[in-house]
Amino acid sequence: MQRSAPFFPITVQDYQKLVDDYDTWMFDCDGVIWKGNMPTEGAAEVLTFLRSKGKKIIFVTNNPTHSRETFKKKFARMGVEVAVDEIFSSAYASAVYISSVMKIPKEKKVYVIGMHGIEEELKEQGISVCGGTDPADNTLELVDTEIGNPSDVAAVLASWDSSINYTKLSKAFQYLTHNPDCAFFSSDDDLTYPVEGGVLFLGTGALSSMIRYALGREPVSFGKPSKTMFECIAAKHKIDPSRTVMIGDRLDADIAFGKNCGVATMLVLTGVASLADVSDIAPIMPDLVIPSIGDLRILSHSTS
Amino acid sequence: MQRSAPFFPITVQDYQKLVDDYDTWMFDCDGVIWKGNMPTEGAAEVLTFLRSKGKKIIFVTNNPTHSRETFKKKFARMGVEVAVDEIFSSAYASAVYISSVMKIPKEKKVYVIGMHGIEEELKEQGISVCGGTDPADNTLELVDTEIGNPSDVAAVLASWDSSINYTKLSKAFQYLTHNPDCAFFSSDDDLTYPVEGGVLFLGTGALSSMIRYALGREPVSFGKPSKTMFECIAAKHKIDPSRTVMIGDRLDADIAFGKNCGVATMLVLTGVASLADVSDIAPIMPDLVIPSIGDLRILSHSTS
Repeated sequence: MQRSAPFFPITVQDYQKLVDDYDTWMFDCDGVIWKGNMPTEGAAEVLTFLRSKGKKIIFVTNNPTHSRETFKKKFARMGVEVAVDEIFSSAYASAVYISSVMKIPKEKKVYVIGMHGIEEELKEQGISVCGGTDPADNTLELVDTEIGNPSDVAAVLASWDSSINYTKLSKAFQYLTHNPDCAFFSSDDDLTYPVEGGVLFLGTGALSSMIRYALGREPVSFGKPSKTMFECIAAKHKIDPSRTVMIGDRLDADIAFGKNCGVATMLVLTGVASLADVSDIAPIMPDLVIPSIGDLRILSHSTS
Repeated sequence: MQRSAPFFPITVQDYQKLVDDYDTWMFDCDGVIWKGNMPTEGAAEVLTFLRSKGKKIIFVTNNPTHSRETFKKKFARMGVEVAVDEIFSSAYASAVYISSVMKIPKEKKVYVIGMHGIEEELKEQGISVCGGTDPADNTLELVDTEIGNPSDVAAVLASWDSSINYTKLSKAFQYLTHNPDCAFFSSDDDLTYPVEGGVLFLGTGALSSMIRYALGREPVSFGKPSKTMFECIAAKHKIDPSRTVMIGDRLDADIAFGKNCGVATMLVLTGVASLADVSDIAPIMPDLVIPSIGDLRILSHSTS
């Protein structure tokens, strides 16, 4: 289902066709279901409605700061009951890839630029971590940038980290420069992420750019738009791509992800992208555009 | 004096010709005169010899963390007497440009990612700064990323900062996204810098890449290879480019700088670049290559 220009559903019939066309609904979270800690109006109601119609719901987030358990609690606070295995985060995809595909030896570690959530997911997959939340690496003093034996660390995994600092960046850079076999991973490539009030903050892709730029080497990235995330989903859920839609607020992450996975794509305008971004010359074009997932309430209201 | 392949002085006569050919000797510091806190063997002796021959000596450093006064003290510790007006740093060039060329209004500020040295140079040129060493901006807690009125800040100046953190990066990014008139400057573009033991650390260019990457906008950079630095030098010293040589350890910064300024270029191998980097296909080729500036002692020894 490729169109040169996106379709804008307006009528109840347009929306009804959407629900008829797709069995699996994959949702991005930030900018779609919520913005920071503010739920999108009507999101909970729409998710409940889709479940009542027997739709499979999957959440696909590039936010690597929380574990899936923490996301489940965030959903609950917003009035949405979600099972852990419906949540696919870039932290989880990173951990699954590093343990199952890379098969990192038991005695080796992963140096993490990141927070508690990604550490938790890595540990749950049996991976030893260093860096991350270690107090020694969370300092503004350049007390200790020694890395010991570089070959103890099999990979550097960069992800979003509110405690980003020179010690963490230095250590990650040293591991990568002193050990050519050290793999370089990024949980995701998002340059920015939206919070309340339309403010953009720097994302993982911006933070990891320091290392990629100085190193002259690109990391393998797990988040959207990488197909790795879809392979994780497909390993746990039976999915027919022709009956699946990916809904997101970013062309470069969500819509590109949907296209890479061969599913239909729907852009919402409650996050990063605006209507101006889907002009004739946009390099990535969604199949469908709606203002907000809250607009799907047109169906629950019309059928209630 | 452009050659397709560099010339490697070997004999006393080769070195003597060098001294005869150039009246002004511009030296990079890190990787040439010293590496971290370790002086290059023979550097002090060579500088004394060149001064004894009536040569004008100028130091051109992209290290933006020290003021020129602090550099003068560092030279003194290494046994070299240097006048402040012989030192041109990227911090000084930034301050001169922002005050004299940009002519920033008195009531506006510059938001600094950087340390004490660059703040000092800015203040000396009458520029009001924010960020920098302000304790409120030197934290790993995301306590306050509010920026007040974005139009109060006329420019963001990114430079090397061992206390780089998310608050500073966020504030800089907010000023630039909320105020399209906010200028974006970088003290220099060095990706890395060498310390003792051949270890490379991340440089200003790597740190500022976070913002340039997320913003999709390149900063105006003052350090080498930008000609702005040479304009600063030429404003203070009478220089004949045809009788001037630039000596440095980096092709992308020092040798490119020399070429941009129309002076002869000499690479030393005591820093970042190695002999392998001046192969036939090197995009930037120095006119001359010597192992170390210490090798110029061949002259002081032969004439003493």
